[in-house]
Amino acid sequence: MARQSMREEIVEAALAQFHERGFNAAAVKDITDRAGVPKGSFYNHFESKEALALVALGRYGDGRRLGDLADKSVEPVARIRAHFEFLRDEQLEVGIAKGCLLGNFGAEIVDHSETIRGGVRSGLAIWAEMLSGALVDGQQAGSIRKDLDPDVTARYLVSAWEGTLIQARTFKSADVFDSFFDLTFNSLLKP
Amino acid sequence: MARQSMREEIVEAALAQFHERGFNAAAVKDITDRAGVPKGSFYNHFESKEALALVALGRYGDGRRLGDLADKSVEPVARIRAHFEFLRDEQLEVGIAKGCLLGNFGAEIVDHSETIRGGVRSGLAIWAEMLSGALVDGQQAGSIRKDLDPDVTARYLVSAWEGTLIQARTFKSADVFDSFFDLTFNSLLKP
Repeated sequence: MARQSMREEIVEAALAQFHERGFNAAAVKDITDRAGVPKGSFYNHFESKEALALVALGRYGDGRRLGDLADKSVEPVARIRAHFEFLRDEQLEVGIAKGCLLGNFGAEIVDHSETIRGGVRSGLAIWAEMLSGALVDGQQAGSIRKDLDPDVTARYLVSAWEGTLIQARTFKSADVFDSFFDLTFNSLLKP
Repeated sequence: MARQSMREEIVEAALAQFHERGFNAAAVKDITDRAGVPKGSFYNHFESKEALALVALGRYGDGRRLGDLADKSVEPVARIRAHFEFLRDEQLEVGIAKGCLLGNFGAEIVDHSETIRGGVRSGLAIWAEMLSGALVDGQQAGSIRKDLDPDVTARYLVSAWEGTLIQARTFKSADVFDSFFDLTFNSLLKP
């Protein structure tokens, strides 16, 4: 395989470093070291750490498999469940750590960077929209409570998921995931 | 009023600085400057920034008015609602910013500090326990769905709240609070 471009290597390293350490703790030098490129090369490719964080956020969003939420060949409740199972399994694979980059930046940096706030906002908005679409499908199929507003519910599920990640990391326990799945699927959405 | 002790001034400044900027972005020098004390005095009072963060977390928890959740003179649903309204109003007063110190540290630093993870864990556990007690009161009074497991539900509400704060800050909008109150009280808890 050909060596990736230097820019690409910086983006991949940044995504990993931001996700593991957060925005402030990830220094440009840490990122270029991780990418195996000279620190001086950074500013040939990116105007600032913020600009790079925005690209990393986009890359992170691309990995969320949001398209699966619109896959009409899968029953809507199963589709929503599989989506959150995918996100949970990502956490379990790394020992319940790192959380969600959108939530992490949302908690750490959106008050201080309009650039990053814009990126997090887009990521959260697209996610909620995709979830809302799947909820509507479930309501039409009769497998999701019809009196729930799909947009309000989608936003609530995003909130519940982000808080679940915070608690799972804090307790270093998968019990919090179980609570999320139990309440969401056995009570909240159930007709 | 007598001048507060230097230690107390450092704790108050640290709480404010950590809450505004996060753990990593709050340098010891920022905290001592904010407290108006010499930087050198810091290590007379605290072993490390982590040790101070733990004290600040305790102080933050004391300000959550969790005791109100056990006030049996108030109807349980009204009690839970008033609790979250208090937390929401704190955010509205500062232009929807800063979020919850427990959630912020949970997203930023628990993977990297066992000391702080312990403090966040205690804070979240006590909060969920108090909420669970209020939920049980509501179930006994018939104003909360009886088939909900109170511990699972309390944990879910904590998650939903923490994620709501992240989204409210990101969208700089109170709509996310409205979604939280609407779904929690008009659907999730309703018998």
